[in-house]
Amino acid sequence: MQALPPLKFDSNGLIPAIVQDAETDEVLMLAYMNQESLQLSLQHGETYFWSRSRSGLWHKGATSGNVQRIVEISIDCDADTLLIRVDPAGPACHTGNRTCFYRELRA
Amino acid sequence: MQALPPLKFDSNGLIPAIVQDAETDEVLMLAYMNQESLQLSLQHGETYFWSRSRSGLWHKGATSGNVQRIVEISIDCDADTLLIRVDPAGPACHTGNRTCFYRELRA
Repeated sequence: MQALPPLKFDSNGLIPAIVQDAETDEVLMLAYMNQESLQLSLQHGETYFWSRSRSGLWHKGATSGNVQRIVEISIDCDADTLLIRVDPAGPACHTGNRTCFYRELRA
Repeated sequence: MQALPPLKFDSNGLIPAIVQDAETDEVLMLAYMNQESLQLSLQHGETYFWSRSRSGLWHKGATSGNVQRIVEISIDCDADTLLIRVDPAGPACHTGNRTCFYRELRA
């Protein structure tokens, strides 16, 4: 296990991670990491998350093949959010859309 | 009050909002909205958030002048995260940095 800079995980032990395409700068998704998924991400250079709905570790792309190779991880000023720039092997969204943010909110 | 599409607010009544510069595509910050701050944002065309640390409504830029004019709001596939593309009047971060994600995580 590698040493990490102090990060603020929430009361459930999670930190939100914004995933952005490193080439197009498109925001792809928001997911959550716990300490273990962050360590796995750093170790393997691909994104691992904690699935809140399935209560389990989730290697993004393990089933679909659409892994996300990590290019860079940044921390925000409060150290309670991560920004992960990736090189995605395919669509980020389970709907097949390139990004999960494919719907516009209309007031 | 305008009708909103169904959004999933968490057990605290909040939804995370990723703020992205609409011109440069830079991710600027992550903040949280409740129903009221989202309504105010839609009404005024500028970002309003719920400050978890101060437990109060927060009009971004009210003090600093660095308001964020809203260009577009998208919802993710799960309807539990917003992506807000903005035209910022100045730096997003209270540190004076253009983005809150100015530090790289080094493993």
